[in-house]
Amino acid sequence: MTRNLTMLTDLYQLTMMYGYFKKGVHETEAVYDVFFRRTAGESGYAIMAGLDQVIDLINDLHFGEEDIAYLRSLHLFDEDFLTYLKTFHFTGEIYAIPEGTVVFPYEPLIRVRAKIIEAQLIETAMLNIVNHQTLIATKASRVVYAADGGAVLEFGLRRAQGPDAGLYGARAAVIGGCSSTSNVLAGQYFDVAVSGTHAHSWIMSFDSELEAFRAYAEVFPSSCLLLVDTYDTLESGVPNAIRVFDELRAKGHEPVGIRLDSGDLAYLSKVARKMLDDAGYPNAKICASSDLDEQTIWELKQQGCRIDIWGVGTKLITSENCPALGGVYKLAAIDKGGVLQPKIKISENSWKITNPGYKKVVRIYGNSTGMAIADLIMLDDETIDPEKPLTIFHPQETWKKMTLTNFHVKELMVPVFRDGKQVYTSPSVMEIQQYAKEDMATFWDEYRRFVKQHLYKVDLSDKLYQLKKDMLNQKR
Amino acid sequence: MTRNLTMLTDLYQLTMMYGYFKKGVHETEAVYDVFFRRTAGESGYAIMAGLDQVIDLINDLHFGEEDIAYLRSLHLFDEDFLTYLKTFHFTGEIYAIPEGTVVFPYEPLIRVRAKIIEAQLIETAMLNIVNHQTLIATKASRVVYAADGGAVLEFGLRRAQGPDAGLYGARAAVIGGCSSTSNVLAGQYFDVAVSGTHAHSWIMSFDSELEAFRAYAEVFPSSCLLLVDTYDTLESGVPNAIRVFDELRAKGHEPVGIRLDSGDLAYLSKVARKMLDDAGYPNAKICASSDLDEQTIWELKQQGCRIDIWGVGTKLITSENCPALGGVYKLAAIDKGGVLQPKIKISENSWKITNPGYKKVVRIYGNSTGMAIADLIMLDDETIDPEKPLTIFHPQETWKKMTLTNFHVKELMVPVFRDGKQVYTSPSVMEIQQYAKEDMATFWDEYRRFVKQHLYKVDLSDKLYQLKKDMLNQKR
Repeated sequence: MTRNLTMLTDLYQLTMMYGYFKKGVHETEAVYDVFFRRTAGESGYAIMAGLDQVIDLINDLHFGEEDIAYLRSLHLFDEDFLTYLKTFHFTGEIYAIPEGTVVFPYEPLIRVRAKIIEAQLIETAMLNIVNHQTLIATKASRVVYAADGGAVLEFGLRRAQGPDAGLYGARAAVIGGCSSTSNVLAGQYFDVAVSGTHAHSWIMSFDSELEAFRAYAEVFPSSCLLLVDTYDTLESGVPNAIRVFDELRAKGHEPVGIRLDSGDLAYLSKVARKMLDDAGYPNAKICASSDLDEQTIWELKQQGCRIDIWGVGTKLITSENCPALGGVYKLAAIDKGGVLQPKIKISENSWKITNPGYKKVVRIYGNSTGMAIADLIMLDDETIDPEKPLTIFHPQETWKKMTLTNFHVKELMVPVFRDGKQVYTSPSVMEIQQYAKEDMATFWDEYRRFVKQHLYKVDLSDKLYQLKKDMLNQKR
Repeated sequence: MTRNLTMLTDLYQLTMMYGYFKKGVHETEAVYDVFFRRTAGESGYAIMAGLDQVIDLINDLHFGEEDIAYLRSLHLFDEDFLTYLKTFHFTGEIYAIPEGTVVFPYEPLIRVRAKIIEAQLIETAMLNIVNHQTLIATKASRVVYAADGGAVLEFGLRRAQGPDAGLYGARAAVIGGCSSTSNVLAGQYFDVAVSGTHAHSWIMSFDSELEAFRAYAEVFPSSCLLLVDTYDTLESGVPNAIRVFDELRAKGHEPVGIRLDSGDLAYLSKVARKMLDDAGYPNAKICASSDLDEQTIWELKQQGCRIDIWGVGTKLITSENCPALGGVYKLAAIDKGGVLQPKIKISENSWKITNPGYKKVVRIYGNSTGMAIADLIMLDDETIDPEKPLTIFHPQETWKKMTLTNFHVKELMVPVFRDGKQVYTSPSVMEIQQYAKEDMATFWDEYRRFVKQHLYKVDLSDKLYQLKKDMLNQKR
């Protein structure tokens, strides 16, 4: 099931690796952080996802014979280096925030401490995986929030950006809260529920809609959900469905419901609900699909739609309003004579300046509410004494501060690799979904609004802030 | 290199297959068309891509033991059906428009004629592949058009929607005209050029920018392109680069150039150009990257930027302004007593009504110009006599017509599978790129504008138009 993704990298990683190798500094220990500077679209948070595939990537990191032959053919590298690559594998340390965790800008999601040549190679594939899955898990979380208890089914495979985007997108969608996916391969790989009934082509392949409904009900008497919009939803689809439901019931089966896939879903669902109720099917569900996203679902609900189940396709699987999360991988420290020396990337844009050093993230919870109050990015050797008041500052408006008492803290990152050996096992996808739900429940709804959310505070510890300030002053 | 994608399908394909199987109609011959109703974003055309991966999909179509076991575990299918699946493979016919061809809305890109149970299964993966690659090839074509002769490098792997989106996205980007990709795996798989030098982290890992530049020049004396924006582009980056270029030249090597990755690219490139020219490096190239797309490139060129090479990442690899092409797969005909009976999908929205029947597409070229004039979707058994005048109608404004003489026609679809056997071999990716370039050259620039292009005409033949009208009247 796992493909070797060692070569799924940018060429410049290999030219830099070669450069370090030729300069004899390739074994220098370095620390890199994966983080994003902005959430995707208008979300106030993100849901960490993709770590399990990063673990596969790292475990399987090696260059095969064909890979070496291909690299030789580029005429960029000498034989010493190619020989070195033959036994190349990952020997470093990785800490990461577990999948399903609610995360925010600038927080190290993954921290790599390894020989610079190893740390450099894995950048591209790791970012690819985490950027993609975190993006989709977050989008799904928003769609599920809009559905407000209604089940959300992931339907987007045909519009996903290639097979993996469908497969791992479905995984991420389930982490973000989707109840099931239409994607059979995702069901098989990740042990998540799959769902689906029939398409318009099923209806069209019979001489009439009624005949098509009857055939479907005959084959799936106990899971009969009928697509009612092929010809005319209210004039033909729903009446025919009710007729077939009556026939089903006469044989002792209760129908599941109907699916609407076009037209005005608010109006149609309200009328169809009445027709189903009047016909004696108050428990028949109404499923709707048709270019849905969190915004449309939210508006349909405002208009009193009677939709129980939401099939969400293109706009979820591509995160259509913002199809990329801009996660980056930045050098945070490098060994200098046996000591890790912090590194900072400066920029004209203050939001592009990195946080230096070997860091961790802690989340602060109020003891009385159990709710998250703020996160703190700090140096790894720092500790917080929850017995003492803690003053934190607003990340942008630094003159605003808050002093906390009666709180507890949790470190967000866990060890994943030590000395190149995996020391963390991913939970199942359904366990991650459950964890994500529980983690999200520690955040006030104010942080989840679709637009103009309350800003969740992510502060730097005093010591880290001071280090950053000193390093910036030194550069000028 | 090929993964089995048989299970990469929507569950409803399998439930419909089971339904056809249980009703004993699964071997009924049916015809389906892959087409899109609208181009993505604001493009006036699309570049067909993905056929080679569709061919792999079809050739490898089978259910393994594990797949059967998984399907059994769903408790939806009986053992008869599962046994049937064990020997399932594709036995039908496929025609398709070759990759690299310029295509338009409603044109059948792929036409499948097969047992309905086979034709149904392949829908999802086929759409996934063609929607994705056609989307990215088209986006790349627009970016390359904006660059107006400047090389475009595909750089987006880290922001692509998963590994395949990076891999096949790079393939599609090269088809659309990109000169190279940063993606090493894509280079290896598809025999396309790869490019890349170093990142900011290379610079930061040394004590100074100058030291980092010197180290890079030492390792890559004959392909030295330096990233100059880590600290200060004009105060530090370009002067240090020139210093290292002088040292290189003293050793007999000419530098390749510099890369700008932030700041105002128009201003910086103009000043850097002058600095390089004044220092004696008029041939040193200026490469630029930083959230580019066709619109930004076009505007930078309007402002007289001096950029020779464009590195384009996120916005190309995700087709950021429109991350999905809405390709669909619709039943066009079904066997009834040994004769293919046309089928039509009606809808409240006229643009959603399908074109019925077993069809083909022809392109009409003017003999005097060699340029494409219009496309005609027609029934497969129709022919056009180029010796006789041909009247075609505007697709939307049907009162507008045009009578053509002195033209020739080309059928766009070619046979790809016959009786389940592959009868077409894909050209290499570089051959497809060349073909795409030549095909695009048969279209006037008016069709390529970034916004409000001239509408390329895709008409229905009289016979197909009449069939469609009759079928619509019959439904009412």
